Amino acid sequence: MVITKSVVFVCDKEEYSGVKKIAGKVCLDVERITDGLPNVVPEALEGPGEKVFFATLEQSPLAQKLADDEGLTTELGKIKGKRECYIFAVRADKIIIIGSDKRGTIYGLFHLSELMGVSPLVDWCGVLPAKRESVKIEEGVTVSREPSVRFRGFFINDEWPAYGNFTTHNFGGFNAKMYEHVFELLLRLKGNYLWPAMWSAQFSLDGPGLANAELADEMGVIMGASHHEPCCRNGEEYRYVRGPGSIYGDAWNFWKNRDGITKFWEDGLKRNGKFENVITVGMRGEADTAIMQNATLADNINLLRDVLKTQNRLIRENVNQDLDKVPRMLALYKEVEPYFYGDKHTKGLMDDPELEGVTLMLCDDNHGNLRTVPTEHMRSHKGGYGMYYHFDYHGWPYSYEWLNTNYLPKAREQMSAAYEFGIKDLWIVNVGDILTNEFPLSYFLNLAYDYEKYNSDTKAYSDAWFAAQFPYFTAEQVKEVSDIVYESNKITGMCRTEALKPDTFHPINFGESDYIISRAKSLIERTKELRKAVPAEQDAGFFSQVYLPVVGTMNVELMQLYSGKNRWFAKHNALVANIYADKVRECCRFDKALVDECDKVGNGRFYGMAWSEHFGFNSWCEAGNSYPVYSYVEPTRKGRAVFWPDGLDITTTGQDWTVREGVLDAFKNPECNEACIKMACCNEGGLELKTSCDAPWISFTVEEDLEKLTDDGKSGLDTIRIKLDRQKLAAASEKTTVLTIEGNDGHGARILVKVHIDAKEPEVLKQVQNDSAVVHNTFIQTTYYISMEAPHFVRSSGFNLLPGYGKTLGAVKACDITKTFAANDDNAPFVEYAFALDPDFVQKTGGVMAFDFYLNPSNPAYKDNKLQFVAEVNGERILKDAVDSEKFAVGDNQFPWGTDIPNNIRISTVYADCHAGLNTIKLRPVTPNIVLEKIVIHEANKPMPASFLGAPETFRLS
Amino acid sequence: MVITKSVVFVCDKEEYSGVKKIAGKVCLDVERITDGLPNVVPEALEGPGEKVFFATLEQSPLAQKLADDEGLTTELGKIKGKRECYIFAVRADKIIIIGSDKRGTIYGLFHLSELMGVSPLVDWCGVLPAKRESVKIEEGVTVSREPSVRFRGFFINDEWPAYGNFTTHNFGGFNAKMYEHVFELLLRLKGNYLWPAMWSAQFSLDGPGLANAELADEMGVIMGASHHEPCCRNGEEYRYVRGPGSIYGDAWNFWKNRDGITKFWEDGLKRNGKFENVITVGMRGEADTAIMQNATLADNINLLRDVLKTQNRLIRENVNQDLDKVPRMLALYKEVEPYFYGDKHTKGLMDDPELEGVTLMLCDDNHGNLRTVPTEHMRSHKGGYGMYYHFDYHGWPYSYEWLNTNYLPKAREQMSAAYEFGIKDLWIVNVGDILTNEFPLSYFLNLAYDYEKYNSDTKAYSDAWFAAQFPYFTAEQVKEVSDIVYESNKITGMCRTEALKPDTFHPINFGESDYIISRAKSLIERTKELRKAVPAEQDAGFFSQVYLPVVGTMNVELMQLYSGKNRWFAKHNALVANIYADKVRECCRFDKALVDECDKVGNGRFYGMAWSEHFGFNSWCEAGNSYPVYSYVEPTRKGRAVFWPDGLDITTTGQDWTVREGVLDAFKNPECNEACIKMACCNEGGLELKTSCDAPWISFTVEEDLEKLTDDGKSGLDTIRIKLDRQKLAAASEKTTVLTIEGNDGHGARILVKVHIDAKEPEVLKQVQNDSAVVHNTFIQTTYYISMEAPHFVRSSGFNLLPGYGKTLGAVKACDITKTFAANDDNAPFVEYAFALDPDFVQKTGGVMAFDFYLNPSNPAYKDNKLQFVAEVNGERILKDAVDSEKFAVGDNQFPWGTDIPNNIRISTVYADCHAGLNTIKLRPVTPNIVLEKIVIHEANKPMPASFLGAPETFRLS
Repeated sequence: MVITKSVVFVCDKEEYSGVKKIAGKVCLDVERITDGLPNVVPEALEGPGEKVFFATLEQSPLAQKLADDEGLTTELGKIKGKRECYIFAVRADKIIIIGSDKRGTIYGLFHLSELMGVSPLVDWCGVLPAKRESVKIEEGVTVSREPSVRFRGFFINDEWPAYGNFTTHNFGGFNAKMYEHVFELLLRLKGNYLWPAMWSAQFSLDGPGLANAELADEMGVIMGASHHEPCCRNGEEYRYVRGPGSIYGDAWNFWKNRDGITKFWEDGLKRNGKFENVITVGMRGEADTAIMQNATLADNINLLRDVLKTQNRLIRENVNQDLDKVPRMLALYKEVEPYFYGDKHTKGLMDDPELEGVTLMLCDDNHGNLRTVPTEHMRSHKGGYGMYYHFDYHGWPYSYEWLNTNYLPKAREQMSAAYEFGIKDLWIVNVGDILTNEFPLSYFLNLAYDYEKYNSDTKAYSDAWFAAQFPYFTAEQVKEVSDIVYESNKITGMCRTEALKPDTFHPINFGESDYIISRAKSLIERTKELRKAVPAEQDAGFFSQVYLPVVGTMNVELMQLYSGKNRWFAKHNALVANIYADKVRECCRFDKALVDECDKVGNGRFYGMAWSEHFGFNSWCEAGNSYPVYSYVEPTRKGRAVFWPDGLDITTTGQDWTVREGVLDAFKNPECNEACIKMACCNEGGLELKTSCDAPWISFTVEEDLEKLTDDGKSGLDTIRIKLDRQKLAAASEKTTVLTIEGNDGHGARILVKVHIDAKEPEVLKQVQNDSAVVHNTFIQTTYYISMEAPHFVRSSGFNLLPGYGKTLGAVKACDITKTFAANDDNAPFVEYAFALDPDFVQKTGGVMAFDFYLNPSNPAYKDNKLQFVAEVNGERILKDAVDSEKFAVGDNQFPWGTDIPNNIRISTVYADCHAGLNTIKLRPVTPNIVLEKIVIHEANKPMPASFLGAPETFRLS
Repeated sequence: MVITKSVVFVCDKEEYSGVKKIAGKVCLDVERITDGLPNVVPEALEGPGEKVFFATLEQSPLAQKLADDEGLTTELGKIKGKRECYIFAVRADKIIIIGSDKRGTIYGLFHLSELMGVSPLVDWCGVLPAKRESVKIEEGVTVSREPSVRFRGFFINDEWPAYGNFTTHNFGGFNAKMYEHVFELLLRLKGNYLWPAMWSAQFSLDGPGLANAELADEMGVIMGASHHEPCCRNGEEYRYVRGPGSIYGDAWNFWKNRDGITKFWEDGLKRNGKFENVITVGMRGEADTAIMQNATLADNINLLRDVLKTQNRLIRENVNQDLDKVPRMLALYKEVEPYFYGDKHTKGLMDDPELEGVTLMLCDDNHGNLRTVPTEHMRSHKGGYGMYYHFDYHGWPYSYEWLNTNYLPKAREQMSAAYEFGIKDLWIVNVGDILTNEFPLSYFLNLAYDYEKYNSDTKAYSDAWFAAQFPYFTAEQVKEVSDIVYESNKITGMCRTEALKPDTFHPINFGESDYIISRAKSLIERTKELRKAVPAEQDAGFFSQVYLPVVGTMNVELMQLYSGKNRWFAKHNALVANIYADKVRECCRFDKALVDECDKVGNGRFYGMAWSEHFGFNSWCEAGNSYPVYSYVEPTRKGRAVFWPDGLDITTTGQDWTVREGVLDAFKNPECNEACIKMACCNEGGLELKTSCDAPWISFTVEEDLEKLTDDGKSGLDTIRIKLDRQKLAAASEKTTVLTIEGNDGHGARILVKVHIDAKEPEVLKQVQNDSAVVHNTFIQTTYYISMEAPHFVRSSGFNLLPGYGKTLGAVKACDITKTFAANDDNAPFVEYAFALDPDFVQKTGGVMAFDFYLNPSNPAYKDNKLQFVAEVNGERILKDAVDSEKFAVGDNQFPWGTDIPNNIRISTVYADCHAGLNTIKLRPVTPNIVLEKIVIHEANKPMPASFLGAPETFRLS
């Protein structure tokens, strides 16, 4: 069937008004493509021309008739009684959409839009389809599956200053004019559930009046309220109705003001009970604080039980006598969690009759890592479980509210774990101001809608998603835009831009900062280049989904990393610090300009949306934010330069009183034939330095301003590039040498730097070359440590590879996500790595090595608070607690959680004795949630140089 | 007698050539005044005209003849056999100078120069006398006293890069051309003893050849060598003569190369033994390191005894069979100290026969505080004691080698203690490059020459000294120059400029930084003003003694304190940070210009002298120095300001999520009628803020840029000046109020700051007003702490006031410097302070108070390592160890010494229970060396805000 502007949309008069409204939106989609607006015609069954029939089984007689007429009765049987299912049948000149219920038909209608190449974001942020005369829809019949998760939605939160200013400016408030767009977005993404903004807004009063709630109900959106807003009333509401003479009393306190609070809830249920809701039950203190402070656990549990009993009674009286028909939700959040579990003296609310049928909502740690999940025993709870996840957060240890910094592999790993642990009844995600979070939000809702389909490679998902957003792009451009966004999310996934400090990525060690700077610069350039290919009318969509999030976050990366360079060079009084200072300032100015641009793009449709503060937080709240300072240094009076081996923060100025001897062992790695010494000048006018080395197998060049920091190439940051000729080396008897840099300070003192170069082949490499036990991926020691990326194991059992996961190459995780294994279980899954240690090194150090396991900062799965694995070194098993179960806690001012989160890693170190030559290390999970990204092996008593990503991978046999 | 250019200097031909040389220098002084050069005429006894006769009793027959002829035989009897004495007799037309020995005559001759108004610095640094036709010398006869200390001199040290470049450039090396000026300076200052430069120089080889040593001997300068250079050989010498085939062997090791080292010493004694020396004995490792590492104490002691025995034998053989006639010195420095004292298992070298007659040289801690001094038992040691003191230092925790930063009160307190403890045989002071240290050096040598006269008020000394340097100044100008230098030394005495960090003086708390900035600025301006009054030909002298040290050090103060302000404001993103950044840069540039100016002043006579690095040390050595960075902030996008009570680093931006309530209790002090709130703007274009307060007794003004940081007065740093009307307050019933500052950020969020003002009269003030026990100087609590300057005691016994001593007002110290008192000795000296605590405060806090005793960071006097005092609170005596005698040690990487030294204070805190109303606290010294500067009393569990000077004095009854 071919859709043109003359297509007619047909339903009968009984059809839900909300469904007809959605049909109208699909007609608008046709117009967006063809420039002609089709009609929605009630009951115009006959007549010529292409038609789209739509009908809701539980509401519209047309549904049965269409099934009978079109031979879809078998299909009708498949959706009958199911939630949110639809039949989508395409014939030569008609399309028949039959929904099992209101949202079934709506999803069917929007399925048509998708088939027409219309993005679910079309209305929300102007991601427009390509213009065409007509769209061909392939013939065939589809029956949709019941969604994997029952309630699937998002939470508009932390809405000041961005969303609040946006909607005030563009819509005049948090009203139905605005919410209609949000509902449409939700439904197009096949969500069904929404928590509205509630910092200052009152959903059921701001419509104006009930208009928001009525519109939601009409359009088939199930409303919830956040975890601390029971009985369909927003937290802010009480503030307006309380008072000395109020019928609601003047205290948000069920103990002191039982009657007032009960009345307040009752009136909420009377007002909103007629709509589709998931009613929040339970109670917290005002403004998201603990309900009753300075009371015993038992007192609190009893109070909460009393609250629940009262609320259940009110719901029976005012909503439905059959509580099983009323979706209810209790959040096990913050202090409510211990009330649920109780302790050994006091029984908690688990298995309490008042909670029967109530969905228990669990949550992540606000930073994307699940907290406790249901044990096997708990999974049978009637009412099931929900998950409150965060793509945006306002709180400790840092807030992230600006642009999308979420990385799909992490979201997939965590939400699939949630699903496997039986959390299938309710998924809600905090998306802050929504804008720029649409990409991860789409994935979240897709996964919730069809878990089996979307629990798969997220890069492929990204490719498909961006193809769907930008149909006017060529295949190459689509690949490019997906690569760009995915990579920028990878980078922000290492450390969210809000948590980024100037020294997060080390300015020198392992070239970390250089590596991220070059990627960020390239991403910005490529995004700017792509934008040029975007048609003018499509710019707003591209801006919101690609340009703003990529260029915005990558500019912050540059700003902070340039600031780190600025500080490091300033500490050494190197003049190049001043060039970096200028660069920091440029980034600050660009950041402001970008925020201003966002106010204007698409005729101001995103006005205010980029106003959240987004870096330099001195505190978790935006009050403490500031741009990085940029610091200038004064040239030294005397000639001076600072020298260091590229990638290692060990400097010398070569002056008297300082250590002037360096060591370069890079050439021991058989794949390395080039290494650099860097030098930065501290005085104006440079220095006359003489570099010399008499080994015939070494040559070197001195390169000015390799990083092209200045137009004239005179940044004062120079590179001595040392090249190794392996042929000459092989012929030489002496395989060590000294490179000398000499000069003077022009004030009577000499400058002298000596670099000892060791290019001897590692002994161990010779040994293992003839060892048949040595296989592909065996790491060979060539320097004082070995670094292994998790995917480079030699053997594994029951382990999945998570490509791209985490901070570096990827991760591995046991396939059986939910299982706990005994430490001595030989059949437990394992992943094994091989490494060979140099005999000299082992003799010198004694061979006791530290194994730094780089783990995702997961939280323990259960209340026992255990996160354990076994490290098996050469067959010896060491049981390791990745967290101290006695002390570990998630929450404000809790450490080490509070540092693991911005670090986005938990380094768990195991010490074991190793021998010269081949060794093996196996990781065996004990508890769930062990996700391994990297292992760094080094001398037990010699800590590794500071770095955020850990040392880059060292030499391995290919 | 009137001296004109036609005066004739007369001696006989037997007179020492060195004395005649000195007479020639005095003639030059006459020429400097009168423009005519007198003659030195041997034996021209007869003839008309004014004459100056000079003769040395032990050398010149003229001495006895003059005494006989001029009726000075009684006086001659007084000096005969004495060291370094002279008769100075003035008649109508002649002056007769008779010295008991060579230096006696020399001092007598230079006494004439002084009487003519010639500064001892005249030759050394061009401090020139006023030009006159003639000088009248009053008639009369003076007989000088034997000097208090036998060997008195200085050490040219740490001579690179400054002195080394100076003498290389101006004299071609460390040769006799240069040393003649140094010897003259020493002798004019009535010193007799010198340690020459020895980092790279070899005194006895650089003359050229022996010329340096020969000239010293001729001019009457006794040469020493530094503490680790035995037997008249410089440390550097061995480096040049050692080697595989050398007769001296190739190891500075008496154990392995006994013969070579013995020969090396023997040849040194043969070469220099004929001159006047204090011969260093003992041995240290090369380049001032420990002699034998990894050996037992007994081994080391035995080795050192063997060394001494060998050296004594060599001295007997090569210098003088009578060792008593050979001044020898052993430095009890670093590891030699324990070898001297031994421990309970091993007898040390104390009382060893090899040390009989050897002067034992003790030393300060390199930072101006004596280390161990002789116990009463030790004081009878034959050979006596010496003191190696520092006005310059190269080492840990920081070096100070640039300009004079020494403060006379400290030097007086320490060196008078040395004298009282019996250290009277040798005083040597490290003056680094000499230049600018002439002022404290003069005091040091004056005190050593005449202890009774100069152990007195150092400010009076300063006034007299500057009057003597600048005879062309008016009395007011002389007072001004003395005030300026004394005050700048006071400031550098708080913390030497080299140790100063940007946050040493707190940028906000107690207005510390503002206070020092305003003093430093004023000193610079006044010095520049004074310089205008200096005649062109006198400029070099003024530059070296006043302009360079004052302006140089005060500019560093400004540079660092502006940097502290820059950092503090930058941390808060306040735009005024950028103004301070510019100021830091200005100071850096000025600093460089000043160093360059020093190279040119006086036709380059001081070339190189200001080249030492002098701030921003990241390490103790100059390799780590750098100028402070200056940091710029980017304006915030949203409107923002930071608010704080003037003098207290507690800020708010008044935004949501931050604490916005402040407390102002300044008006509880009955003398305070004005207080300020400061605010600094963070965004461009300022903020509209409304300040209000409805108390009738409060008025306020908002003053822009009170500190006049910008020409347009728009620095963004504003002051809300709050004034109290005490008449209106008295009439008001409510004596507390709230001052409110309100506005908004222009982006939808409000700004709100509340300051709670409490102006109630303190309860305790009412109480004590009728209490006859309450006397003058009683401190009355008006805020949460009491701060008392040491001089403001109410009673004392056996205590001296040290005016101006230390970091604030002055100090007190027991009169009996050397005595140790029992803790329970009722007759021990004490100093008593009175303070009255507020009843409310005592009730709220419980009354347990902390007493922070601000003590000079003295070291324990004896090997028992004890530094103790008794704090007597309301009659209860608490024995307090100011240092932990088990752990305290002076030396590299020793803490807390290493922090007490740059802090220049040791805060020793005693806790005691107090009651409401009047309390007393007495300090009773137990050990020597307790010097009290301040006591701060505060709640035991509430630490005081960070500050370098301690809280300023609080309210007391006058």
